[in-house]
Amino acid sequence: MVRERLKGFLKVENIDVALNKLLNRVRVKVDEQQVPICDAAGRIAAEDVMAPHDYPPFDRAAVDGYAVRSSDTFGASPSNPALLKCVGTIDVSVIKSRISALGRSPGLREGEAYLIFTGAPIPKGADAVVPLENTIVRGNDILVLAQVPPLANVSRRGEDFRSGDVILRKGTLIMPWHVAALAQANISHIKVYRPVRIAVVNTGDELVEVGSNEPGIVNSAGPLIMSYAKLIGCEVVGLGIVRDNIREIKEVIERGLNVADVIVITGGSSVGSRDVVPEALSSIKGAELIFHGVNLRPGRTAGAYVINGKPVLMFSGLPVACFVGLEVILKPLIYYLLGAHPPPKVRTRAVLTRRVVNVIGYRSFYRVRVFRGNDGRLYAEPLRLTGSGIISSLIKGNAILIIPEDIEGFDEGAEVEIELIGTID
Amino acid sequence: MVRERLKGFLKVENIDVALNKLLNRVRVKVDEQQVPICDAAGRIAAEDVMAPHDYPPFDRAAVDGYAVRSSDTFGASPSNPALLKCVGTIDVSVIKSRISALGRSPGLREGEAYLIFTGAPIPKGADAVVPLENTIVRGNDILVLAQVPPLANVSRRGEDFRSGDVILRKGTLIMPWHVAALAQANISHIKVYRPVRIAVVNTGDELVEVGSNEPGIVNSAGPLIMSYAKLIGCEVVGLGIVRDNIREIKEVIERGLNVADVIVITGGSSVGSRDVVPEALSSIKGAELIFHGVNLRPGRTAGAYVINGKPVLMFSGLPVACFVGLEVILKPLIYYLLGAHPPPKVRTRAVLTRRVVNVIGYRSFYRVRVFRGNDGRLYAEPLRLTGSGIISSLIKGNAILIIPEDIEGFDEGAEVEIELIGTID
Repeated sequence: MVRERLKGFLKVENIDVALNKLLNRVRVKVDEQQVPICDAAGRIAAEDVMAPHDYPPFDRAAVDGYAVRSSDTFGASPSNPALLKCVGTIDVSVIKSRISALGRSPGLREGEAYLIFTGAPIPKGADAVVPLENTIVRGNDILVLAQVPPLANVSRRGEDFRSGDVILRKGTLIMPWHVAALAQANISHIKVYRPVRIAVVNTGDELVEVGSNEPGIVNSAGPLIMSYAKLIGCEVVGLGIVRDNIREIKEVIERGLNVADVIVITGGSSVGSRDVVPEALSSIKGAELIFHGVNLRPGRTAGAYVINGKPVLMFSGLPVACFVGLEVILKPLIYYLLGAHPPPKVRTRAVLTRRVVNVIGYRSFYRVRVFRGNDGRLYAEPLRLTGSGIISSLIKGNAILIIPEDIEGFDEGAEVEIELIGTID
Repeated sequence: MVRERLKGFLKVENIDVALNKLLNRVRVKVDEQQVPICDAAGRIAAEDVMAPHDYPPFDRAAVDGYAVRSSDTFGASPSNPALLKCVGTIDVSVIKSRISALGRSPGLREGEAYLIFTGAPIPKGADAVVPLENTIVRGNDILVLAQVPPLANVSRRGEDFRSGDVILRKGTLIMPWHVAALAQANISHIKVYRPVRIAVVNTGDELVEVGSNEPGIVNSAGPLIMSYAKLIGCEVVGLGIVRDNIREIKEVIERGLNVADVIVITGGSSVGSRDVVPEALSSIKGAELIFHGVNLRPGRTAGAYVINGKPVLMFSGLPVACFVGLEVILKPLIYYLLGAHPPPKVRTRAVLTRRVVNVIGYRSFYRVRVFRGNDGRLYAEPLRLTGSGIISSLIKGNAILIIPEDIEGFDEGAEVEIELIGTID
């Protein structure tokens, strides 16, 4: 009987195919919420936001200098400076006066210049700014040491954003510069998606919670999943440890479905005497098995059900296998639910210090330690390990080498692309 | 007079030298706090944490299979299988019994095998595990189809962590796998540094807060700095907008020094008629000017004071110049205060579509748009812009090209290294 169950796992599914099937079957509505822009960074935009008006709202000085008629500087040079009369100062504070804000600041006539500061509106009649460093002050006059073409050092109205330009696209991870652009456009609140809610269940008769004095294996997958989910912006509901009992597992999953968008459950989905999670899930009304067994190493026991549109992910309780499931299945799922792209990975190239092999058909996740050699090149040392429970491989290592399913391995000395998960000493 | 002030800026300081001077002068004590491990990810460890005991605490099965004496499998092959008698099952749940947890599970004699599941203790007398897929079940007997050497598929006691091994090093950014390793070692709480507190002040007679109906320039640097600081894990105290008035600025800085570890102040530190921030800072008892004017483009007006050990950073109120200051000065400062390394940047190489030039001696931050060409290569298109106020360059762009101070520029077609700040379409 055990043998029969195992056979199911030997026929693993390609992870990309499996994940796509899952994404196509989930139906989760993640609501929007209005937040002040200063709380928006790190969230996902739930609306397109357009510039409501041109920015800058008027032609403005891009440097500190003198606003001039460019034609007055024609031919100016250090040996033949143009002499202009300084008739006043325009500071950004003039913007507080509604009149000057419209660029109807004091006019400028031939032979005249205004001292002007960065950001201040270009006065009527001027069409360029001579940078301060190209001028010499002579009492109320200035000497211009270099000619400026029309529009030199002028930031044009609408140069930053024209009315209707996209400031923020729905599905974008909001960064500090988006917040600055929203502020600049005088937009104080925007719609973001609420965090995806993830319920976490860990099954296993052998498990005890961290801090317990009872004998047993401490639940490490639970804290791993909860920490991971929080770091990618999710809200976490910990449903604790459940015994390997179909009725109890079914009950806790049903509880999870009531409070969360996504359920992650570990343990009890491997081969063997305690293959209870799939049985418990199958017994829930509307449950649909999407996949069980994927070509990940470690992590091949991963599986997924969808119940009334909500995904229920089954991962190994062994921490490294579980981590691979989080990276390859949970993270893309979360960003999919938010209509967003995951942020780019930190990748680099390094030279392998040792041969690594792959089982053809599997996508293998090797933990490697990357270091800079005396020759200045980056090297990646694959960490020796057995099984998928050796969490120290992620701690002693600082990067992951992913070997695709069609590659048998890489030789010592090969340059490979790796994903950094820590700093390089 | 204006001309005199400007001269100070033309003599800019090398940013690395300036930053080092700052780091050497700050004296900020960031306290520790004890947190449950599930709240620790994303924080900086404030203590070294060692494994309190070996993990695994006993030799355990690294796969599902049969625990055997390896000598009993000698010479086994599909055409000449070894016949063993299955005398029982060892599941991880046996660990709950204190006796079996110590590896004193049922003994195994010559010619015998136990069905064993991943993570379960290897029984006395056994020294290897034959994976299930290399066996055939025949009633109570099993046929072993391949020999196993001693210790095959056995995860040795202490293989993951030996007692005293470092799980987490002081100054490490805590990641989910650290949390898993702490849980596994039954460590429920650890010490982390409390968030660094940053007070933000924005000066400028022209400024209004976002959402205001008054004429003026909306304060965008404030929301930029606050969002940036929160994303790197800081606590933010917004002290709002202050007029260009030395007394008012001095008062608000003194307030900031009482509540925060670091003050960031924008505006009023450029050349020109409103050079009030340095004056206000200089008037505070114990204030020491560390630098003012650095070789950053944009961002050369950045400066720093230290007052009673606390850093006060002066940045431009123009958003792109301010952002460069945050990246190059604030971020390294924060990680320095926590004794930590900043997380690695997302870098990639791309081919320039257009020549870019640098002013020798300056470190220039070009915003570029990276895209994948039809030939599959990555290209970087430098964005045209004037001045340091064009925030859309960070939104239309998705990467930054930093040109070092000793490089005159890069030609069209040159392959350059860039830092990604968004996703590549």
